[in-house]
Amino acid sequence: MGSTVVKENEKTFQPVEWGKTKNIFGPENVGSKHLKINITEYAAGTAHNLHRHPDQEEVIYILDGEGITRTDAGDQKIGPKSFVFVPAGTNHATLNVLKDKPMKAIIIKSPPTTRKGE
Amino acid sequence: MGSTVVKENEKTFQPVEWGKTKNIFGPENVGSKHLKINITEYAAGTAHNLHRHPDQEEVIYILDGEGITRTDAGDQKIGPKSFVFVPAGTNHATLNVLKDKPMKAIIIKSPPTTRKGE
Repeated sequence: MGSTVVKENEKTFQPVEWGKTKNIFGPENVGSKHLKINITEYAAGTAHNLHRHPDQEEVIYILDGEGITRTDAGDQKIGPKSFVFVPAGTNHATLNVLKDKPMKAIIIKSPPTTRKGE
Repeated sequence: MGSTVVKENEKTFQPVEWGKTKNIFGPENVGSKHLKINITEYAAGTAHNLHRHPDQEEVIYILDGEGITRTDAGDQKIGPKSFVFVPAGTNHATLNVLKDKPMKAIIIKSPPTTRKGE
């Protein structure tokens, strides 16, 4: 069994409510049990609603743009080369604060699937 | 509980056999159970030996430089914006092929701890 190499431009964005996302690795293409990797572009001026994943950890690595990571503990600024760790069960949202530019990030989740917090 | 934001330059590299590495997130600083995130610089012309982690998946995202991901299935070229998925239990090595420049990558592992394959 070998490793799988993917370049970002080999994958296609799919629209989501807050912009667009492309799956790089996950159970559906490499059979991963622990990791799901996406690239997401948050559209200008948009925000996720606060949400949580009871059993899933998330790391966000900002590639481009400027935004905010929001939790019940408050807001923190994020920008290129910021890493964000969101513990499982934490209410969180990601906001793009720029009006004219998407914010682009690598989204890392483990485990890859989760139920959404109610 | 909130999220944790870290900029790469807030962490300090530690020397390893094949270059240097810094831990961004892991059990020891954010109490993660699923994710370990490092930034690693592979020194010019160096290589990991082939090794495997029986129960751990790994994703490598190349930030800068040029190299090879090696498994029993062969070698594949990697460079900036390449993502590499290494399945659990797969013999693998990462090589920096440049003679004069480090190769820099984000290393994502899940679960965060593992025993090394013999």
